[in-house]
Amino acid sequence: MSPIPGLDRVGLLGGGVIGGGWAARFLLNGVDVQLFDPDPEAPRKVGEVLDNARRALLKLVSAPLPAEGTLTFVDSPEAAATGVDFVQESAPERMELKQQLLQRASAVAGPDVVFGSSTSGLLPTEMQHVMTHPERLVVGHPFNPVYLMPLVEVVGGERTSAAARTRAAEVYDQLGMQPVQLSTEIDGFVADRLMEALWREALWMINDGVATASEIDDCVRFGPGLRWSFMGTFLTYRIAGGEAGMRHFMAQFGPSLKWPWSKLTDVPELTDELLDTLVAQSDVQAAGRGIRELERQRDDSLVAVFHGLRSVGNGAGLVLDRYEQRLTEQASVSSRQVDPTQPLRLHEVAVPAEWVDYNGHMNDSRYFQLSSETVDAFLRHIGLDDAYLAGGHSWFTVESHLNFVGQARQGDRLYATVQVLSSDDKRVRVFTAMHRAHDDALLATAEHMLLHVDTRLDKACPAAPEMQAAIAAIAHHHGALPTPGNAGRAVGQQRS
Amino acid sequence: MSPIPGLDRVGLLGGGVIGGGWAARFLLNGVDVQLFDPDPEAPRKVGEVLDNARRALLKLVSAPLPAEGTLTFVDSPEAAATGVDFVQESAPERMELKQQLLQRASAVAGPDVVFGSSTSGLLPTEMQHVMTHPERLVVGHPFNPVYLMPLVEVVGGERTSAAARTRAAEVYDQLGMQPVQLSTEIDGFVADRLMEALWREALWMINDGVATASEIDDCVRFGPGLRWSFMGTFLTYRIAGGEAGMRHFMAQFGPSLKWPWSKLTDVPELTDELLDTLVAQSDVQAAGRGIRELERQRDDSLVAVFHGLRSVGNGAGLVLDRYEQRLTEQASVSSRQVDPTQPLRLHEVAVPAEWVDYNGHMNDSRYFQLSSETVDAFLRHIGLDDAYLAGGHSWFTVESHLNFVGQARQGDRLYATVQVLSSDDKRVRVFTAMHRAHDDALLATAEHMLLHVDTRLDKACPAAPEMQAAIAAIAHHHGALPTPGNAGRAVGQQRS
Repeated sequence: MSPIPGLDRVGLLGGGVIGGGWAARFLLNGVDVQLFDPDPEAPRKVGEVLDNARRALLKLVSAPLPAEGTLTFVDSPEAAATGVDFVQESAPERMELKQQLLQRASAVAGPDVVFGSSTSGLLPTEMQHVMTHPERLVVGHPFNPVYLMPLVEVVGGERTSAAARTRAAEVYDQLGMQPVQLSTEIDGFVADRLMEALWREALWMINDGVATASEIDDCVRFGPGLRWSFMGTFLTYRIAGGEAGMRHFMAQFGPSLKWPWSKLTDVPELTDELLDTLVAQSDVQAAGRGIRELERQRDDSLVAVFHGLRSVGNGAGLVLDRYEQRLTEQASVSSRQVDPTQPLRLHEVAVPAEWVDYNGHMNDSRYFQLSSETVDAFLRHIGLDDAYLAGGHSWFTVESHLNFVGQARQGDRLYATVQVLSSDDKRVRVFTAMHRAHDDALLATAEHMLLHVDTRLDKACPAAPEMQAAIAAIAHHHGALPTPGNAGRAVGQQRS
Repeated sequence: MSPIPGLDRVGLLGGGVIGGGWAARFLLNGVDVQLFDPDPEAPRKVGEVLDNARRALLKLVSAPLPAEGTLTFVDSPEAAATGVDFVQESAPERMELKQQLLQRASAVAGPDVVFGSSTSGLLPTEMQHVMTHPERLVVGHPFNPVYLMPLVEVVGGERTSAAARTRAAEVYDQLGMQPVQLSTEIDGFVADRLMEALWREALWMINDGVATASEIDDCVRFGPGLRWSFMGTFLTYRIAGGEAGMRHFMAQFGPSLKWPWSKLTDVPELTDELLDTLVAQSDVQAAGRGIRELERQRDDSLVAVFHGLRSVGNGAGLVLDRYEQRLTEQASVSSRQVDPTQPLRLHEVAVPAEWVDYNGHMNDSRYFQLSSETVDAFLRHIGLDDAYLAGGHSWFTVESHLNFVGQARQGDRLYATVQVLSSDDKRVRVFTAMHRAHDDALLATAEHMLLHVDTRLDKACPAAPEMQAAIAAIAHHHGALPTPGNAGRAVGQQRS
């Protein structure tokens, strides 16, 4: 039994990259799969997609996934459609092939079993008429990789019932996808049309020698592509229109439709009627959000995409990395004069939106993160660098203690200091104090015991002599400072 | 003095949304700005962009930003260009207006001062001939919002020197942007051409009543837009080609160029020469990465964008949120039978890529995060919900202690248990144990003192009676369990 009501077993017709992606979506959501593909290589191919999907979905989803469904390869479309709750067809894009599969499978499937077709552009009206119960065919067009991409375009043909559309959308939604119901069937539906227009323009540029594939892709991923990941073209342009919105944007940029800004020049006439329609639809989309709110949502989303891409070292994330490295270097050249007789002021951050929790202030775990980053700055300060790590040595945290004193809000700038409490040849006990910059208020303290390790043997060993010397020099100064009140505490211990 | 060598002061011509964005980029990087805009509203408009930029850049950048530069409004293009190291022009898109500004400003600027123009499509050759030292004009086309978007298209005209192109790219790079050097000047350059092609196709759909603005935007942001945020159209299609890459993709999809999949039908002829060029450029772009490596980079980047967008509650992030909520509910309906006589097993995660640090395993701060999430699950378990929070009550962490025992790697599934150590009417001391799922190895433990607070008065107060009862019931069972060895420790304390 799958955890999704009414969806215990599905039939899949076709097991290529797309069919394999569907298999992964269903199986990892606990649904059993019966798959027909005449290709003898299909089990290997589906297995490869499943491996990718398991790896990616485990990273994506932190909620508990159900036990995987069972995958069975069957030898006919009839066998795939027998005893199932839903069928998804993902055969190559040849009309007669799809018709044949749908005809055979629909002859044996229960009369209420809805069929989704993964076609990226063939019309459902032309596919459904060969079927037993043609009213249950819906296009459910997914995107590669199917196990991660949310979009499914849901399109009915002339004979498709409303119930079938609703059921298909419900199935895709249950798999964690985003069904978008389209009212009209056209070749290529919506997303492929947009991709195709961009692709044709890009091909012209290669053809004309204007730019290379890399340059064109860079112009997408460092530019409009970043915005397209959370808002499409209409919302982007509405914001470009400022206070006055879409009508203003069109007044400014409508004339450019006549300009030679694309090789693809067959453009719609910008009639009053089209303009009114566009403005009204844009208003619906904005749903009452004013320009400032839209700008802030856009900016917050851009920041989040940057941070996400930095965590995997790709695209715009690398631009940010480079920038921060330079800022850090500039700061250390121009002003970083660390006073060795005081707790070392080594780290500074602004509280990002995602650090704030349901209590409206910075989450407790982010103080640990801030303290951990501060300890990293301390380790760099005493000589831990890439060469030292590559030599098979590092410092591991073995024990930590934190006290939470005050609260930080989004956008607050915080700084942290490090005091060495004690050390020997392979251990150093440090104390960090986290302050709000604008009033120097103490918000939290942390104490960490660090152990120097041989990372190849995974056991403690003495630090390099010059690193021991650097720590000793700091410890000498810090020995003259008072021990912080929160050092050495156990949780809940009475204050002395 | 700005921290950027050779860039202490710049002149800006135009202070609208784009000019204001440039002002923010320069000022927040410590560069002084002299800005000319005849609009009496310019100071207000630039101030609004600056407010947005300060807010966004502080969230984006955790490295220390330099002291802000000084903004001065001046009353002529000559005054803006006097004594500066660089000039950026961002006037409205009228050739004669831009020519006039460039002519006047270039007559007074030092001979080596490079000029960037923000034009989104006018040709530099037609702008530069009116200038004193025309060889120093470069198009530097940015994207909105200029203070966040990395892309700047760098395009020279017929008379532009290589030195000027290099200098402009260097300036943009210093501001944390991504200059892309284009070899050929064409109307609209590269990015606007691609946006325009997509936009014209989208307008056709509105015109034909095929889909609405919201539906079209959804088909971008839940679909291809997600991929475009870190790879463009060529790399996307190379991956779609599988092992055999670009040539295979074109063999499969080249014919669709003849299909009516776009209203924009003036397509290039797919000659052998064009195909060879495309394949060669695609190989350069892949830089030796095979299909599996490209697929994994794509998947990791998609996951990171999802997580980023979830943190700000936008687009694909909301799809993930909904999906996880359902998975969690399904899990609690189907199997969550928490044994009350044992430490409560309430939370489970898979270690994402961004939780792993330079030591190759899960960063210490992520154990605190995991423990904190586990405590949140415990609080929900005892009845903390949105209504309780809205009533002005919550639990705050006041003290924590952690011990690090083992190491987790990316993709490991971890689970955590909660044991109640002690409690009274406004305090509960809990102990979490974090384990690797596949071998039940203990990786870390944490102890937290939680205080029940009136969030309006910001002071401690007793928990609601039914919540106290829920805690007492658990504490009764847990009182029979042995106290964990790491409970009650101070950092570095000898083991007894």
